[in-house]
Amino acid sequence: MNPVAFIREKRDGGKHRREDLEAFLLGYLRDEVADYQVAAWLMAAFLQGLDREETLWLTEAMARSGKVLDLSSLPHPVDKHSSGGVGDKVSLVVGPVLAASGCTFAKMSGRGLAHTGGTIDKLESVPGWRGEMTEEEFLERARKVGLVIAAQSPDLAPLDGKLYALRDVTATVESLPLIASSIMSKKLAAGARSIVLDVKVGRGAFMKTLEEARLLAETMVQIGQGAGRKVRAVLTSMEAPLGRAVGHAIEVREAIETLKGEGPEDLVEVALTLAEEGLRLEGLDPALARRALESGKALERFRAFLEAQGGDGRVVEDFSLLPLAEELPLVAQEAGVVQEVDAYRVGLALLALGGGRRRKGEPIDHGVGVYLLKKPGDRVEQGEPLALVYHRNRGLEEALAHLRSAFGLGPEALPRPLVLDLV
Amino acid sequence: MNPVAFIREKRDGGKHRREDLEAFLLGYLRDEVADYQVAAWLMAAFLQGLDREETLWLTEAMARSGKVLDLSSLPHPVDKHSSGGVGDKVSLVVGPVLAASGCTFAKMSGRGLAHTGGTIDKLESVPGWRGEMTEEEFLERARKVGLVIAAQSPDLAPLDGKLYALRDVTATVESLPLIASSIMSKKLAAGARSIVLDVKVGRGAFMKTLEEARLLAETMVQIGQGAGRKVRAVLTSMEAPLGRAVGHAIEVREAIETLKGEGPEDLVEVALTLAEEGLRLEGLDPALARRALESGKALERFRAFLEAQGGDGRVVEDFSLLPLAEELPLVAQEAGVVQEVDAYRVGLALLALGGGRRRKGEPIDHGVGVYLLKKPGDRVEQGEPLALVYHRNRGLEEALAHLRSAFGLGPEALPRPLVLDLV
Repeated sequence: MNPVAFIREKRDGGKHRREDLEAFLLGYLRDEVADYQVAAWLMAAFLQGLDREETLWLTEAMARSGKVLDLSSLPHPVDKHSSGGVGDKVSLVVGPVLAASGCTFAKMSGRGLAHTGGTIDKLESVPGWRGEMTEEEFLERARKVGLVIAAQSPDLAPLDGKLYALRDVTATVESLPLIASSIMSKKLAAGARSIVLDVKVGRGAFMKTLEEARLLAETMVQIGQGAGRKVRAVLTSMEAPLGRAVGHAIEVREAIETLKGEGPEDLVEVALTLAEEGLRLEGLDPALARRALESGKALERFRAFLEAQGGDGRVVEDFSLLPLAEELPLVAQEAGVVQEVDAYRVGLALLALGGGRRRKGEPIDHGVGVYLLKKPGDRVEQGEPLALVYHRNRGLEEALAHLRSAFGLGPEALPRPLVLDLV
Repeated sequence: MNPVAFIREKRDGGKHRREDLEAFLLGYLRDEVADYQVAAWLMAAFLQGLDREETLWLTEAMARSGKVLDLSSLPHPVDKHSSGGVGDKVSLVVGPVLAASGCTFAKMSGRGLAHTGGTIDKLESVPGWRGEMTEEEFLERARKVGLVIAAQSPDLAPLDGKLYALRDVTATVESLPLIASSIMSKKLAAGARSIVLDVKVGRGAFMKTLEEARLLAETMVQIGQGAGRKVRAVLTSMEAPLGRAVGHAIEVREAIETLKGEGPEDLVEVALTLAEEGLRLEGLDPALARRALESGKALERFRAFLEAQGGDGRVVEDFSLLPLAEELPLVAQEAGVVQEVDAYRVGLALLALGGGRRRKGEPIDHGVGVYLLKKPGDRVEQGEPLALVYHRNRGLEEALAHLRSAFGLGPEALPRPLVLDLV
C-alpha cells in the first residue's frame, strides 16, 4: 500500500480494496502514515464518499484497533446508543428495564459536549458512583447485575479516537459514513450481539431533518448487520427536550421517577420502544419491558447497579442525597398554549449555567439544570411558571434569555410526533 | 481566520476572501496552521476548484512569501518558463538571442526530475560554470551581460516550496490552479516585466493533451496579467524530443551549434517563436531575434554569460572540453520511415543511463545521453544507426530497450506540427 496512490484512488472517486484501507488506517495508528496524509484522505472521502463496503471495512478496522470485548457468554447482551440530545436520560431507563427483562445491558458511555449531555456525567451526580473500572470489573458487574455502564475506555477503538481528533480540526466531521463508522466501531468493540440505536432528529439533535437521520440510521444498521450483529434504529424527535428535566442530578431523579411508574409520557414512550426493540432482536417477548417497569423490578435493578459501581443506592428513595442548586422560577410573560420548547436553546441554557462543556475535559456542575413545568401542548397563564432554573448565580442572565426564546406560545397545540420511524 | 471554518468553506464549494486565504497560507508558512489542515484544504481545493481570483491570490501570496526581485531598472526584462520536456535546451538559445536583441534575460531555473531535464544541470556540464550566486551577483550579471541563469533560490517563494512538498505526499499535485500558481509564483517573485511560457504538450510532457495544455496556459496567462505582467504562452509539441541531443553536455553542444546557425530545425523554430513573442511583449521588433541568431551576436552573448558565471568560454569552439561518455550506436532492425520517437521513452533511457534523477538531490552524470540520428520524417535502412547512446556501462540494457520501443517506423512520414497554439 502506497499512501499517495491510496489517497489518489479516493480523490479520483475510486473504491479501495479492503487490505489497502486497513493498511492505511493501521499505518496511521502506528504513526507510519502521516497525519497530513490521513487528513487529505479524509477530505477526499468526505467529498467522494465511501460506499457500503468501504464504510464497513473502516468501521471494523477501527473496532479491531484496540480491545474487543466478548459478551457472548452473558445472557442476551444488548447495547444501546443515542446520537445525542437534550434531556436524554433514556439509557438510565432502558438499561434497568432490559436487565430486569433477562438481558445483559453492558454499555460504554461518553461524556457530554456542547449542548448535549452524557450518561456518565449524569450518573456521577449520584454520590460515590464511578464509571471507571477494569475490564474484569465490567464483565463481573454485567454478569452479577445484568447492568453496567462504564466510561468509554481509551483502549476501545483507539483508531476512532485518533481519527475523530483529526476530523475535528480538518472540517471532516459531518460526513455520514464517517459519523456512522465512528459510532458503530465503538459498539462493535463493546461486544453486544444486539444493538438498539436511538437516532435523534430535530433542533436539539445533530441530525436536523428526518432524511439525514434516516440515512444515518440506515448506514449504521447496514454496518452492524455487515459485522454480524442484530441492529435496530428508532428515529425519535429532539425538537423539544425529552422529559421535563435537563441537567444531571435532576435527570437521574426523573429517571428514578420513571422507573417508579411516575415518568413523563414522552420519556416512557421512547424508553419502552427502544427496550422492546432490544427484546425483539434477542427473540424475547417485547411485553417484558413494560412489565419490568410496572413491577418495580427495573427500579430494583437500577439500585443494584448504582451500588455495584460504588454509588449510594438510597438516592432511589431520598432525592435530597442528590445535589441541587438554587431554584428560580421562569414565569410566562403572556398566556397561551406551549407550541414548542426548543431543545437546542434549553441545551445552551444548561451550558450557560455551568452544566455543560464547551471543550473536552471541562468540569461541570451536577446540581444545575432546568426543569420544564410546561411542555408542548400545555396551557399557561400570564405570570405562571414555565420552568424552574437551578443555578449557582453564574450565567443566569444568559440562561434565562435562552430559555425565554426557547418557549414558543400560540393559540393551540401543534401535533408533535415522538417516535418518527424504525429502521 | 479560523482554519477549520476556512477549510469547511472550500469543502462546501465556497469562495474564499483574499484576506482569509492569505492568513491561512502565511499561517502555514509560520507553522501556525498545521500541515494536516493545509493537506485537508489542498484536497478540498483540488476537488472543488479555485476560481480565477482565488488562484491569483494564492499565487501572489506565494510570490510575496519570500524575496521579490526588482528588475525594473534593467532594460526590457524578459523571463521564460518551460513546463518541462525531453531534450528541452530552449532557454540556452532564447536567453542569448533575447540578450543580443536588447533585452535582459535574468532567469531562475530548476533542476531536472524524473524523465525531464533541467537547465541548471545542463549548464553544469560546462567546466567551472556555477548557478549559485548572491542576489547582488545576479543583478550585476543581468546588468553587465544581459543574460544570467541562476539556480532557484530557496528564498524565492518559500511558501510554494513548502506547499509543493506537501502536495507531493498528499496526492494533490495534478490540479490545474495549483500547478499554474506554483509556476507563476516563482515567475512573479523573479521580477521580470514580460514572461514567455513554453507549455509542452504530448507524451514527453506533463500535459498529455492540447486541451489540458491550453487550460494551463490560459490559467498562467490570467495569473500573470492579473498580477500586472505581460505574458504570452506558446504551446509546443513534446511528442518527440526537441532537437537531436538528449542529455546534458550534448544538449549544451547542440545549443551552441544552434547559436552558430547549425541547429536542428525544430529547436530553431521553438526558440525563435518564444524569443519573438518576448520581443513583442516588450514592444520591440520580433525580427531582432533571427538577426541576433544569424549575426553571431547571440553566440557571443552566450560565451560572455558562461564566463561571467565561472564557466570555460572556450567550449564554444572546443566541444572536447565537455564531458562525453562512451558511444554506442543503436541500429535499425528494419527499414522504413521514422513516424515517431517517443519523448517519454527517450527520457526514461536517459534516466536509466544515470543522466536523470528519480529523487530530488540525486547526483547525475553530465556525459551520458542519447543523440538521435533519425527524427520523425527521416528514412532509415535496416542496419543503419538510429541513435548514438553515450553511456558508462550502467543501465545500458534498460536504456536500449526504452530506445528501441521509442522508435516507431512506418511506410511514410506523419504530419508533426510543432508550434500548436499561442495563448
